[in-house]
Amino acid sequence: MKIAVIGAEGDIGKAACCELSRRHRLIKVGRSSGDIIADMTDPASIDAMYARTAPLDAVVVTAGDVHFGALMEFTPAHYMEGLAHKAMGQVNVVLAGLTRLSDNGSFTLTSGVLDRDPIRMGSGAALANGALGGFVVSAAVEMPRGIRINVVSPGLLDVSVARYGDWFPGHEPVSSHRVGLAYARSVEGAGTGKVISVQ
Amino acid sequence: MKIAVIGAEGDIGKAACCELSRRHRLIKVGRSSGDIIADMTDPASIDAMYARTAPLDAVVVTAGDVHFGALMEFTPAHYMEGLAHKAMGQVNVVLAGLTRLSDNGSFTLTSGVLDRDPIRMGSGAALANGALGGFVVSAAVEMPRGIRINVVSPGLLDVSVARYGDWFPGHEPVSSHRVGLAYARSVEGAGTGKVISVQ
Repeated sequence: MKIAVIGAEGDIGKAACCELSRRHRLIKVGRSSGDIIADMTDPASIDAMYARTAPLDAVVVTAGDVHFGALMEFTPAHYMEGLAHKAMGQVNVVLAGLTRLSDNGSFTLTSGVLDRDPIRMGSGAALANGALGGFVVSAAVEMPRGIRINVVSPGLLDVSVARYGDWFPGHEPVSSHRVGLAYARSVEGAGTGKVISVQ
Repeated sequence: MKIAVIGAEGDIGKAACCELSRRHRLIKVGRSSGDIIADMTDPASIDAMYARTAPLDAVVVTAGDVHFGALMEFTPAHYMEGLAHKAMGQVNVVLAGLTRLSDNGSFTLTSGVLDRDPIRMGSGAALANGALGGFVVSAAVEMPRGIRINVVSPGLLDVSVARYGDWFPGHEPVSSHRVGLAYARSVEGAGTGKVISVQ
């Protein structure tokens, strides 16, 4: 398959690419590096990405910024950051791809553990993650032309512990290999409308 | 308890008020009718609502608009409508209430069935509902002064079937009485961080 991976340079993106590249041709997409530069918050930029990469059999999104901070210090604008970038950025990629993805293709989005196993400072991520889970469950029943859609919800990755581990007291890190498998399950499997938890 | 119910005139709001009014003093809040007029998308309007009603022991929100339409016809702006109104409107009420609610008070938000049991045309609701579920799970672990937070996720209400039933093929309506009980469970019970499904 020919697969675009948006956010390929992040920890999760690398895990997905490591597994998927064994069997597929990957086009790495990023805001500042990659085979193609694109910004998923900008519909015109997403359109240009699709125009340059078509036809695609699958799109994997492993990108999405959210604000982290104490609940008592969060403002509405902080929450909107995550909704606009992590949630709507990924939704934008799906909307623009509905008419462009190959028949029986797939979208695989990325949320994360924080809407089911919360940490302090993580309510912005939880809001965006929950939105993505709800979207995928619902969008799956209306996908055209046999297209599937799932979201991978990984725990804290082993390779991310050095940077983020202190924020996740007692969380057992998940191996990047297992996270990669979750993307393979979504892209190569038959499931749709699933939140694929890696925990 | 003294409880503000935002969106008291809707089908869900009426169900909540019917049950809660047996034991509590309710202040009904709405955009266009009620004891107090307030718009939850406007932080200044929410602040004014809290100023007029303080001290409150609980806040119940049963309001929230989303766009309904076919996935293929959804635009990013349609999804943002639901995120800005239903999701962020309710989040705004929580943020503004964190320092104003009585000790050991509670927030009870409202999502709905569509992020776990989807229908055609419902992906905007699913996105907003999922966001609210994620938010509540996470915000609960950072609530100050013993304050609790839950979200009630009702199925299609019996009293709403005449208007919306055709959109929910085969869904078994839930009784307004049972929906009301879910709000009592959240307000009067001990749980926090829960998505209270009524199905």
